Amino acid sequence: MSPPSIITLITDFGLTDGYVGAMKGVILSIAPQADIVDISHAVPAQDLHSAGWILYTTYDTFPEGTTHCVVVDPGVGSQRRAIAVQAGVYTFVAPDNGLLSYVLAQEPLHVAVELSNPLFHRRPVSHTFHARDIFAPAAAYMAQGVPLAELGAPIEQLVTWPLPRPERCSKGHFVGHILHIDHFGNCITDFRFRAEEDALALTSLLGEGAEPLLISPRQVCIEVGTMALQGVSHTYADGPAGEPLALVGSSGHLEIAIPEGSAAEALNLRVGDSIIMCLKA
Amino acid sequence: MSPPSIITLITDFGLTDGYVGAMKGVILSIAPQADIVDISHAVPAQDLHSAGWILYTTYDTFPEGTTHCVVVDPGVGSQRRAIAVQAGVYTFVAPDNGLLSYVLAQEPLHVAVELSNPLFHRRPVSHTFHARDIFAPAAAYMAQGVPLAELGAPIEQLVTWPLPRPERCSKGHFVGHILHIDHFGNCITDFRFRAEEDALALTSLLGEGAEPLLISPRQVCIEVGTMALQGVSHTYADGPAGEPLALVGSSGHLEIAIPEGSAAEALNLRVGDSIIMCLKA
Amino acid sequence: MSPPSIITLITDFGLTDGYVGAMKGVILSIAPQADIVDISHAVPAQDLHSAGWILYTTYDTFPEGTTHCVVVDPGVGSQRRAIAVQAGVYTFVAPDNGLLSYVLAQEPLHVAVELSNPLFHRRPVSHTFHARDIFAPAAAYMAQGVPLAELGAPIEQLVTWPLPRPERCSKGHFVGHILHIDHFGNCITDFRFRAEEDALALTSLLGEGAEPLLISPRQVCIEVGTMALQGVSHTYADGPAGEPLALVGSSGHLEIAIPEGSAAEALNLRVGDSIIMCLKA
Repeated sequence: MSPPSIITLITDFGLTDGYVGAMKGVILSIAPQADIVDISHAVPAQDLHSAGWILYTTYDTFPEGTTHCVVVDPGVGSQRRAIAVQAGVYTFVAPDNGLLSYVLAQEPLHVAVELSNPLFHRRPVSHTFHARDIFAPAAAYMAQGVPLAELGAPIEQLVTWPLPRPERCSKGHFVGHILHIDHFGNCITDFRFRAEEDALALTSLLGEGAEPLLISPRQVCIEVGTMALQGVSHTYADGPAGEPLALVGSSGHLEIAIPEGSAAEALNLRVGDSIIMCLKA
Repeated sequence: MSPPSIITLITDFGLTDGYVGAMKGVILSIAPQADIVDISHAVPAQDLHSAGWILYTTYDTFPEGTTHCVVVDPGVGSQRRAIAVQAGVYTFVAPDNGLLSYVLAQEPLHVAVELSNPLFHRRPVSHTFHARDIFAPAAAYMAQGVPLAELGAPIEQLVTWPLPRPERCSKGHFVGHILHIDHFGNCITDFRFRAEEDALALTSLLGEGAEPLLISPRQVCIEVGTMALQGVSHTYADGPAGEPLALVGSSGHLEIAIPEGSAAEALNLRVGDSIIMCLKA
Repeated sequence: MSPPSIITLITDFGLTDGYVGAMKGVILSIAPQADIVDISHAVPAQDLHSAGWILYTTYDTFPEGTTHCVVVDPGVGSQRRAIAVQAGVYTFVAPDNGLLSYVLAQEPLHVAVELSNPLFHRRPVSHTFHARDIFAPAAAYMAQGVPLAELGAPIEQLVTWPLPRPERCSKGHFVGHILHIDHFGNCITDFRFRAEEDALALTSLLGEGAEPLLISPRQVCIEVGTMALQGVSHTYADGPAGEPLALVGSSGHLEIAIPEGSAAEALNLRVGDSIIMCLKA
């Protein structure tokens, strides 16, 4: 028996209305065997960047062939396109508004179509709820075996955002940014590392083909606001409760955390704020 | 292979306790193949109307044969009845307190029973948690093939509320009401339309057999508080960010929205507030 | 066809990030047929006690063989152990920090292992996200048939907390505590009863082998703050809206509730507060 087709959902629809339920009903009406997996419906309203980040930190934990359906869609009903995309071993269904920017920086794009074929829309198509009438059906029909190419006309250019990335100001001095603040108040930055034996390998989000920069955790000093954090810790439990520390989090990005507290609150940090990394010789 | 039996859940149990988990455990203990679908557990505590609305906006997206289990139950343990109802192509399990009012205004009622047969209760039955001990088992036993008629004695009259509906004050002047405020602050009214080619067909929530009233979107003026909104927009993206507009939402109901903002907050609107629709000749 | 393997999830990861989604992706990548059931992801951050309570009030509603994966893990990456435990007819996967205390007070412990076998870890193991890299894989591999004993070395002693329990101050005078405050503001205590015909049988949380104390509901007077509640009600609907009452809730524990209101708010109660029960002769 083949595994069920997995369709994941990320939306900003919240949990108090029927919007998510309606998507699930439409999917199960078309593809009764689909395995619907909620990733998050609590993306802040219309926060494209946050949804893109959540997708980026989860999509590749799923099995090959999973369809990720991501809907944060302030432009619903306007000229913005609805798309389905094959990239890497996954399929993505979303409005063409940049939600896939992080993913497309990592995965090779194979093919993209505009969801223009009305045969695979729910009728009538509401002007305000394409998640129910266009995106959910597209994911469900693919789960039933409809090839992506039948869903609409191929397109070449997708909307993507320029992704934040650290800049090198001088030899041992970099300016990065806070990309995301999580539920615990941890502030996740665009300093991205690959774990090596005893070192950190600083690599940008978009690999430039350049060799990563090998750093010892002890070399690092992080400046955030008026605070300087010495060294990179291994884990939240490394520091005393209430004291800020820097560590490489589960997505490979440097984050500022406070054990048993909220770094975002205590240090008054926001998405977009600058973070400075200095390397001691 | 037949599709799994779908059981959807709508409750006001919230997401921080084990109440929803216990319902799921009971269902899976009786019907291991059941496909449990969360619609919402964030109905405001004891808000029957909100739960009824969420059900109304989702139930018919699900496949024929789905069982919708809806539990907002301030009278649990009192004389209020627990019921299972077949209406249209769906089965509903709920307390008999009006939760099905919207659905029963739309779907033909085939049969209803009181969940009085103790064979299909979880023992012992708690006085405070019929969701776990009566409603979830009823849904699960039906998913296992137990006919609804075995769950208890048939009943004739179900509790329903009078549903809010617009009133015509003069030829081109109607008074409606806000039925629901969604997660985005959109204020959804009881003005309900069927989309026609170039017109809106105003129809009441409870079809009166009368012909719907054909209206051009440009004819409409919506008065809400001290504000007058001219015309009916197609979609949220039609207006400038921050400016209120009226449009026909995904459930066919007229709603007041503010693109990239909250109409409920900005205009200080609440469920039950009056909305006036004027038609220009 | 055998029923799917059920894996339940309880975490404090919240619903706004990808942490829960990543666990689900990892589970489905290893065990595509697993049936993942969300119990709660809204445990207050790092609140071990609350997670233990939610597990205690739900675990035994699930079918024999269910794996419960519970992750509230302030010590992630430190020396605290990751464990899998067979107790009663269930398997539990959790950090060894006391989360299973309530369950282990009720269920016989058969075997416990430390999740030390790197073959069943996701590589590389993050220092900060063992839920994704150690706990979720352990649950998933067991769902695929890997015996618990292969996951790591057996261990003898598990971390458990002393559980709160009522004390008898004099013959008819007991001091108990608030264990949990639920979504509705109901305050659940450590006075635990088994329902008998016309009486309540007071039994401690940890059965001492002693005979339970039979009490008539009318004998009971509950003192909470400056308030005295006479008798034990059957259900929330027994009292007038807004008036506090005591009743035996769905988990068999005495709770203080206010019909259509929040007892916690109105009476300013917190977890850990003392509750006095007096028995009239």
